[in-house]
Amino acid sequence: MLYSKLFGKTVREAPKDATLASHKLLYQAGYIRELSSGRYMLTPLGFRVEQNIIKIIDEEMAKIGSQRLVVPTFHPLELWQATHRDEVWGEGLSQVTDRRGARFAVGATAEAVMVEFVKKFHPSWRDLPIVLHQFSNKFRDELRARGGLVRAREFVMKDAYSFAADEQALLATYWDQFHAYERIAHRLDIKVIPVEADSGALGGDFCHEFIVPCDWGEDTILTCECGYSANVEKAEFVRDDINSGEAQKPLEAVAQPEWVATMDDNVKHYNLPKARFLKNVVYKTHQGQLVIAVVRGDLDVNESKLAKLVGEGELVPATADDLRTIGTKPGWVHAWGHAARYIGDTSLTTVSNFIGGHKEQTTDTINVNYGRDFTCETLADIAEAQAGAVCGKCGRKQLRVQKGVEFGHVFKYDDFYTKAMGCTFTDSDGKEKYLQMGAYGIGIGRAMAIVAETHHDAYGLVWPQAVAPYQAHLIGMPGAEVTKQAAAVYARLTEAGIEVLFDDREGVSAGVKFSDADLLGLPVRLVVSAKTGAKVEYKNRAQEQTALLTVDELLVRFK
Amino acid sequence: MLYSKLFGKTVREAPKDATLASHKLLYQAGYIRELSSGRYMLTPLGFRVEQNIIKIIDEEMAKIGSQRLVVPTFHPLELWQATHRDEVWGEGLSQVTDRRGARFAVGATAEAVMVEFVKKFHPSWRDLPIVLHQFSNKFRDELRARGGLVRAREFVMKDAYSFAADEQALLATYWDQFHAYERIAHRLDIKVIPVEADSGALGGDFCHEFIVPCDWGEDTILTCECGYSANVEKAEFVRDDINSGEAQKPLEAVAQPEWVATMDDNVKHYNLPKARFLKNVVYKTHQGQLVIAVVRGDLDVNESKLAKLVGEGELVPATADDLRTIGTKPGWVHAWGHAARYIGDTSLTTVSNFIGGHKEQTTDTINVNYGRDFTCETLADIAEAQAGAVCGKCGRKQLRVQKGVEFGHVFKYDDFYTKAMGCTFTDSDGKEKYLQMGAYGIGIGRAMAIVAETHHDAYGLVWPQAVAPYQAHLIGMPGAEVTKQAAAVYARLTEAGIEVLFDDREGVSAGVKFSDADLLGLPVRLVVSAKTGAKVEYKNRAQEQTALLTVDELLVRFK
Repeated sequence: MLYSKLFGKTVREAPKDATLASHKLLYQAGYIRELSSGRYMLTPLGFRVEQNIIKIIDEEMAKIGSQRLVVPTFHPLELWQATHRDEVWGEGLSQVTDRRGARFAVGATAEAVMVEFVKKFHPSWRDLPIVLHQFSNKFRDELRARGGLVRAREFVMKDAYSFAADEQALLATYWDQFHAYERIAHRLDIKVIPVEADSGALGGDFCHEFIVPCDWGEDTILTCECGYSANVEKAEFVRDDINSGEAQKPLEAVAQPEWVATMDDNVKHYNLPKARFLKNVVYKTHQGQLVIAVVRGDLDVNESKLAKLVGEGELVPATADDLRTIGTKPGWVHAWGHAARYIGDTSLTTVSNFIGGHKEQTTDTINVNYGRDFTCETLADIAEAQAGAVCGKCGRKQLRVQKGVEFGHVFKYDDFYTKAMGCTFTDSDGKEKYLQMGAYGIGIGRAMAIVAETHHDAYGLVWPQAVAPYQAHLIGMPGAEVTKQAAAVYARLTEAGIEVLFDDREGVSAGVKFSDADLLGLPVRLVVSAKTGAKVEYKNRAQEQTALLTVDELLVRFK
Repeated sequence: MLYSKLFGKTVREAPKDATLASHKLLYQAGYIRELSSGRYMLTPLGFRVEQNIIKIIDEEMAKIGSQRLVVPTFHPLELWQATHRDEVWGEGLSQVTDRRGARFAVGATAEAVMVEFVKKFHPSWRDLPIVLHQFSNKFRDELRARGGLVRAREFVMKDAYSFAADEQALLATYWDQFHAYERIAHRLDIKVIPVEADSGALGGDFCHEFIVPCDWGEDTILTCECGYSANVEKAEFVRDDINSGEAQKPLEAVAQPEWVATMDDNVKHYNLPKARFLKNVVYKTHQGQLVIAVVRGDLDVNESKLAKLVGEGELVPATADDLRTIGTKPGWVHAWGHAARYIGDTSLTTVSNFIGGHKEQTTDTINVNYGRDFTCETLADIAEAQAGAVCGKCGRKQLRVQKGVEFGHVFKYDDFYTKAMGCTFTDSDGKEKYLQMGAYGIGIGRAMAIVAETHHDAYGLVWPQAVAPYQAHLIGMPGAEVTKQAAAVYARLTEAGIEVLFDDREGVSAGVKFSDADLLGLPVRLVVSAKTGAKVEYKNRAQEQTALLTVDELLVRFK
């Protein structure tokens, strides 16, 4: 490819809102342009990177027997409604009504359509497992798009789905995908940590995220030396005992100044550690129901754990107005007695004689004990694991906290979708049974951003060979003779099947060409100049040293 | 690929609404399934056919220097509004409003977005011409989906766009695409006739359709021995002179029975040929304005020609209620005097002393002459060319009529989009000038349907090699020894890089396997049975004769 003819040139300035290196560099080097917030156009260079990533993933899917196909983007809304996914996704799901009044969900994910597809061929046990994948646009009306391709509202996704006869067979396909994801990350030269995670709006209750550790990531993961690793939404930890052996004293209402409302106020007033207090946090479901989460004062509520427990895709913090409807206000919420659902954390049993729980204008309660003085609808794991907490798996080591970004996600749904949609197979005993289903996703745009984020230096991108849009960046220096020689080198390399980007621009300085080459980040830079004579200067983008090679020697390097 | 593992099996029954062979066979052979009306899921087999077609088109695009990229599906609505395309497309264009209130058009075509993309890199004359293409889903809320993949509401399209410095440079890219389309059709083994056509809702005024002649097509084309060929929406023809030399008689109101309302009534009552009467047809624009088209009685109004002339994407026939608003009713419309826009066909000047034009309850007018007794806002080509009409190009030969289906379409827009959207380049003289633009589309699903429609027999599909999902269909007959041998042949062929579909099913009769092979339509059928010994029976799907070959001989056939 001649750089002079390439659509999409380098620019010096970065987008004003760009904070990530990948976002800045992909823009500056001319790989992407934003059409509207979170919706990106890929230039020919960007498209080639995307295709290279797709190729790697497609090959790994083929290796585990997945068959590629494609389904439409507009899904009949009733398919989403069968599992109430339209409600759970809420505004994140775009909808369209056509001219005949038919309603569609614009594909945010494709579980329901794949189930429908499989139903149409009503499989027998002989056909199982069925493993399918596609690369197609996904549409998610994210509240906040961010980081360029990291969180986009429209993006290409590899989504795979497996359908098996029973849980064991499903798990086999699940681990196939799991290991394929490890191989894909390896081929993309990115390091991933698989962690147990929450499946959120997609349904199901067993899943892993593949997290790339990085300080700008939106995910928080906890890892233990024992091998356990989980997203903070899921991470299990041991509630250390505070004083549960202590004798329970009688519940007492005590005088307390009105200003004591926050946890810090309490600590100051009583001079006791946070763990001795009750903390009540109020949330609202999308139907408007209030949920009061009660946790030990040193812990925080994890909204994902709580949402999952109460069967919601998303909870929002209650407002002062919401609190007024149950006769209270911020800082004054009671651990019992309000007209709301009470959900308690298991930490409530680790303390004897809690302070608080029923703050009034001049009083509060002390010596509050769970089970005796108040109970919740249920006690469960709704608190967030913190750095240093004891691992819930081994029960011995302390958890470590890291930030990261999700590269991929694998879900085990069992019959969550197939039962709701009546998707069965005929088993060898002649009986109809529900298919057991899993789903497996990788966002291609995000993968591209992650590779860019983990492969750059101060001068630009440094693509790994497997995803680079071209293998070599050939620079021709000024001068008629040199230009002719560079063109000949370009022709030789191209004939040999090497994908070369040839900066053939006239009237552009060597300095600009060199800095553009660094910015674009192709694995190898080649220079033909008056100084190189009949040879070519070869330089690996990631290294400093150069070598003078004949074209024949050059060809060997690309083998 | 093992047929036993292939997702998507053959079935005997066809969809109830299927009328076309391609629709029936693609369904029965398991290439497609409809998710909702006009929205299709492709099975792994169907997907492979689609990919093969995409590959051919992509290669031909690369040959003419087109660069592949991709743009989002949700287009900011204001980009469509810049050229009023949202109004012209009307309900055919799906729209979405996101959670922040931003409005989007769901990509029905991508002219405006490509203009926006080019603007972001503000090209100089050195960068021109810019030729870009993508393969992406298009969404069109068609009033009637039909024929399986022939007219779908969602489909993959190759859409290409060229941007050039001036009309001559634009035409060079236009003809590049034109010739690429001819090569693509040739490689897909389909016969196309390029015809001049109307650009409809897409804008511009010069375009060609590539029509595949067939009796089930929705397009009507007219061709002349002189080489002229055009869609009926555009076809120019000579208005034969009826009696224009005849002396004009005085306009006269004559008694006429009330029952004389239709053209047939007139012919019966006056015993004169249709050409001697005036015909007035009323349409309504999408803003509700009434347009009365006046043509010679033997001709019909062509709605596309008329719509184009009045600057509308679409006209609808006026209803009796509409006619009431201008004080008339069906069959009683006057050729002048109503509160409506009057547009006349050029045929109005070929007749002296028209009959009709002002029908009242007991009277009508005779000896009506255009220019003397009535005039229209304009006289133009708004009548439909009929078989036998004299070609408007050569003026000598008669036009022939054929039905056909559109395979591709090339448009020359000039600065229609770029001017409205302010898309300029810096010319060598330093001045900013509007880019001259063209656009070029091929629907992949329809191409697949056309290939299927033109490549089948009574038993099933007969794919041309270039698009077949697999090159060979290997059938193993019952028996342990034969099964082992067939598996060995499969392994040998697969190792040699030949794409083989191996029907390895057990407990399925030879008859079923043979008929499935015919239905699927792979180019070559191979059979291993007790009768073939160490050899393999080779049969071309399109031919009757078979040959017994060793595996080595077989490999040679696939070279």
